[in-house]
Amino acid sequence: MPVKALLIAPNAQSFADAIKALRPDAQISAADTADEAIPLAGEAEVLITMGSSFKPELIAAMPKLKWIQALSAGTDHIQRVEGLPDVPLTSLSGAHGPQMTELAILLMLALPRNLRKTLENQAKHAWKRTKVTTLVGKRLCILGLGAIAEELIARALPFGMEITGVSDGRSEMDGVARIYPYDRLAEAAAEADFLCVLAPLTDRSRGIVNAEVLRALGPDGYLVSMGRGPVVDEAALIAALSDGTIAGAGLDVFDVEPLPGESPFWDMENVIVTPHIGGASDRYPQQAAPIVAGNLEAWETQGAEGLRNRVR
Amino acid sequence: MPVKALLIAPNAQSFADAIKALRPDAQISAADTADEAIPLAGEAEVLITMGSSFKPELIAAMPKLKWIQALSAGTDHIQRVEGLPDVPLTSLSGAHGPQMTELAILLMLALPRNLRKTLENQAKHAWKRTKVTTLVGKRLCILGLGAIAEELIARALPFGMEITGVSDGRSEMDGVARIYPYDRLAEAAAEADFLCVLAPLTDRSRGIVNAEVLRALGPDGYLVSMGRGPVVDEAALIAALSDGTIAGAGLDVFDVEPLPGESPFWDMENVIVTPHIGGASDRYPQQAAPIVAGNLEAWETQGAEGLRNRVR
Repeated sequence: MPVKALLIAPNAQSFADAIKALRPDAQISAADTADEAIPLAGEAEVLITMGSSFKPELIAAMPKLKWIQALSAGTDHIQRVEGLPDVPLTSLSGAHGPQMTELAILLMLALPRNLRKTLENQAKHAWKRTKVTTLVGKRLCILGLGAIAEELIARALPFGMEITGVSDGRSEMDGVARIYPYDRLAEAAAEADFLCVLAPLTDRSRGIVNAEVLRALGPDGYLVSMGRGPVVDEAALIAALSDGTIAGAGLDVFDVEPLPGESPFWDMENVIVTPHIGGASDRYPQQAAPIVAGNLEAWETQGAEGLRNRVR
Repeated sequence: MPVKALLIAPNAQSFADAIKALRPDAQISAADTADEAIPLAGEAEVLITMGSSFKPELIAAMPKLKWIQALSAGTDHIQRVEGLPDVPLTSLSGAHGPQMTELAILLMLALPRNLRKTLENQAKHAWKRTKVTTLVGKRLCILGLGAIAEELIARALPFGMEITGVSDGRSEMDGVARIYPYDRLAEAAAEADFLCVLAPLTDRSRGIVNAEVLRALGPDGYLVSMGRGPVVDEAALIAALSDGTIAGAGLDVFDVEPLPGESPFWDMENVIVTPHIGGASDRYPQQAAPIVAGNLEAWETQGAEGLRNRVR
């Protein structure tokens, strides 16, 4: 018999429909908020949930809860919930490649072409050409060679870019000319026109993009920061952007989010700030559904042992 | 013996150096302007020239001129020069693919993600997410299936786009799911999320992107216009953008350029105006050099018969 699941997310029905399209016998109650979900929660063994809709009162209403499937790649916010029962937790890691890498390519195209200036000229009705720097022949260094990097490499290679990587876990990867270990990041940055940060935040990666690395990236180099804010030393980055140590940056993640109004990044002409939208997508239910449907099947046939993306 | 050539372009030496890197014995006198070039012109048999630096006084100073190599894809401006001698003329067609297609991809990424709004929010220090529409699974219809389309297809396919084309000359092409003839453009537009116009301006293409085609493209569809302005019916486009018939447009070319200050395009929130920069590139000398060097060799070994990109 199909396991009973409760799904909570904005537009919950769109996620439920996408999952049922792959697994028609799935038993999913859908609710847009935790408050709406509580009356539906009593029989559910599985909670499928987007972070922001999650709270302790809901857990109290779920005596049969046996597994939590997050609708996000990160699960820190769930693990921090007070009174969270000790059940398996799975993430949605692997669903975000297209949108993450589209934003990375957009930033790499927009920054050296100075699209901000072009749009300012448009607002002034001014037909003025800015210098066009193309991606063809440029060198992209990717810090963090996981699943997202694979999708970025697939999109960046056809632009004629040369790709290098920085990873402690891999020594070769399709499409990557050279891979450096973390402790040679500055050397890798020195060769690069773009340094794209996709690395997860760990003790090893925290602050690794520091003043030395930015100096190595140099006055024609651009930083694209898409992983987690604290991988980059923000104070060093602000200094490097202010004095021309690097050419510019596209920043989707920050030490503190939402980015405080007094942050100097907002007003820097050589910076594009996006509000942590790397993972957002109009197709997110369709992207989430295969992972969730696969895990529902695994749960029913193999139990917790079969779950993919298990965080604990 | 190498033929004597005169090269006129802004930063002429960078072009001459790039050509000599491929053909070390080339005899090239380089000048940034026609006035600087005139004293060097008397012995030259070949004129290699960017459009804007060209004028009748120069022709008068070149009694030995036997061939003109343009440093641009279009040669209309050269053919219009008064008193132009009746010598072979060759273009730089084939050098513009990377930058044209980078701009097309940039516009297709920036428009549905509403990057304009994101940058306006940045100016206001406002952390506000806009809806993210991804390219994955979207349908791109390319009007005009020449060399540039090939490069666009190579870059667009890895984003997970489905590609169709409109051409009277080709019935199949790698990576293109379906090709429609010109007289079925509306049908092709009806299937598309993005209509990218690369077609050259001919009697057949003039005004072909008309009100009917824009209605077919529909309220979620975007137009990217990169070829020549008059392929699009501007009055119909202004109406379609004003009343939501289509979602938005990225426009690099126009009926009249520079785009007049009173054009409604400048102020439309769903439009990105770029100042005919599709062909511009920081690597232009390196892109031009193989074609020019190849033609110099052809001229010396086979004469006019061997020239590539001959326009007349």
